[in-house]
Amino acid sequence: MATKTNRRILLARRPTGEPSEADFTFCQAALESPQPGQMLLRTLWLSLDPYMRGRMSDRKSYAPSVAIGEVMVGGTVSEVVTSKLENFVPGDIVEGRTGWQEYALSDGAGMRKVDLALGPISTALGVLGMPGMTAYFGLLNIGQPKPRETVVVSAGAGAVGAIVGQLAKLKGCHVVGIAGAKEKCDYVVNELGFDACISHREPALADHLQKACPKGIDIYFENVGGMVFEAVLPFLNDFARIPICGLIAQYNDTQLPEGPNQVPLLMRAILTHRLTVRGFIRGDFIDQQASFFSDMSRWVKEGQIKYREDIVEGLENAPKAFQKLFRGENFGKLLVKVATH
Amino acid sequence: MATKTNRRILLARRPTGEPSEADFTFCQAALESPQPGQMLLRTLWLSLDPYMRGRMSDRKSYAPSVAIGEVMVGGTVSEVVTSKLENFVPGDIVEGRTGWQEYALSDGAGMRKVDLALGPISTALGVLGMPGMTAYFGLLNIGQPKPRETVVVSAGAGAVGAIVGQLAKLKGCHVVGIAGAKEKCDYVVNELGFDACISHREPALADHLQKACPKGIDIYFENVGGMVFEAVLPFLNDFARIPICGLIAQYNDTQLPEGPNQVPLLMRAILTHRLTVRGFIRGDFIDQQASFFSDMSRWVKEGQIKYREDIVEGLENAPKAFQKLFRGENFGKLLVKVATH
Repeated sequence: MATKTNRRILLARRPTGEPSEADFTFCQAALESPQPGQMLLRTLWLSLDPYMRGRMSDRKSYAPSVAIGEVMVGGTVSEVVTSKLENFVPGDIVEGRTGWQEYALSDGAGMRKVDLALGPISTALGVLGMPGMTAYFGLLNIGQPKPRETVVVSAGAGAVGAIVGQLAKLKGCHVVGIAGAKEKCDYVVNELGFDACISHREPALADHLQKACPKGIDIYFENVGGMVFEAVLPFLNDFARIPICGLIAQYNDTQLPEGPNQVPLLMRAILTHRLTVRGFIRGDFIDQQASFFSDMSRWVKEGQIKYREDIVEGLENAPKAFQKLFRGENFGKLLVKVATH
Repeated sequence: MATKTNRRILLARRPTGEPSEADFTFCQAALESPQPGQMLLRTLWLSLDPYMRGRMSDRKSYAPSVAIGEVMVGGTVSEVVTSKLENFVPGDIVEGRTGWQEYALSDGAGMRKVDLALGPISTALGVLGMPGMTAYFGLLNIGQPKPRETVVVSAGAGAVGAIVGQLAKLKGCHVVGIAGAKEKCDYVVNELGFDACISHREPALADHLQKACPKGIDIYFENVGGMVFEAVLPFLNDFARIPICGLIAQYNDTQLPEGPNQVPLLMRAILTHRLTVRGFIRGDFIDQQASFFSDMSRWVKEGQIKYREDIVEGLENAPKAFQKLFRGENFGKLLVKVATH
């Protein structure tokens, strides 16, 4: 199973605007053997997620940037090849953040053993992993959905948004997605059971929102930002909750949009409607992980929560595939199949 | 004690920009007698507060606008003159919203009997009334101050801000006020015990904030908005809470500030720092009124919470006095003494 080299993808330079393949570089490193207290992992699946755009930038954020020449960070599911750690044995499947590479050494810190009984191992990076937790923690803790409330979720067909919408349906809410392509809108309504889905490409986005949300919006789960946020703002009800999970529409911006400065309008809306706008990441609620696994694996098994994967074969295709996220071209959780289990 | 006429101040027109005396008009109405189920109230004190600017406008807000030709809304403390209500007798002192007039008829709805044992009756419009509750509810529920956290409060010498800062000191926080005039800054530090106070007129506001908040800002209690908010934003710590109580700097704006549009910056800060930005008004927490009166009256009696009043004599001076709020010219809770008790 072992090989003499480890293919890795490094950050070559900081992107300006949309990331391109030239922002990454390949290297073949000699495969090192695990020292005492280490294990060697073979990457099976690499997750591609919007947050990685932030790590490519040197702007201060909630996690440090990847240095130029370093392996790109990323969530992975791996198989233990050899282990000099007590708690891990060859053949174990683990989830962690070993990055864009075929092999990794790990001292076990931050590694979670994947329970194969919960679902297919790729789901440890999706519905039963970071995106699933993000949806579950953000909607339940910040959104606090109540029956008959109206929930709008942007990027509603995305890895997080699709789960948010289904969870909100389980909680008895009226759920409206916002997505790009018509096939995605059809999917979340026909397959996932959303009540409606609006394309943000529609010129009359506001009119469509008004029709789809006749009682206004109680929860807006934000994955996108930009013009979609502006369109939603006027329809927010008093005491609406706005979990800010992602802002993919603005990650590639190289300058602020032209004026006027809309901050006073936003602040006024927050005050007069008594809105709660709150940013979060998955790790903020990690103490709720056990209930997440228990709830979500049951819902997935019962077919109450469905998921879709968009699978790209081969690590070498990761840089090209990563761009799909920013163009709305992925359809389902974007995963790179690095090796076969 | 009764008189044949009732002097009232009506809204004459909707202001453009800063309110002026010409936006109001006086009228002398015949004094009506209370019908069964009513009582006649003589206004003793009228409270002047920034929120009234919103009521003069026809923009949608959390409460309806005052119609042109209607009596201006306002919180008052009044004495019951005659009563055809079971629960109120002549001589009772009541707090309510009877507006800018010398007398009012009331059916008792929304009227609260003032407990004269708690403090001087004017405090029912200040530290033991709406501004005190606003400070207490917003800081404790949304701010959730913890010992050694840093709290910044704008309009720190104002009716709400002065109480917020003192409450935060009681909770063991490092407290920094932002105010205009030097005498206000001196007052909140020397009299109220804030750790520091910065004038928003300082050209190097950011530098002063950085020096006064060496560990960043955990709670920013917002009364002002505009440039002060922009200056504070870069110093907010992860998980900072921002109760939005008022936005006086922008109430008179007739257009949005020139660009660029800073909303993406604000949204990014909310996400990456996991901020909670939440608007509120006093009424949202009215179920906590009993603990407010119990706590605050004790703290005032013990001298742990101090207050200052800025008193204007005579109802006829209310329109002119109201303007002081928007120019930062009041120093303490702005009150109109309408009649002597």
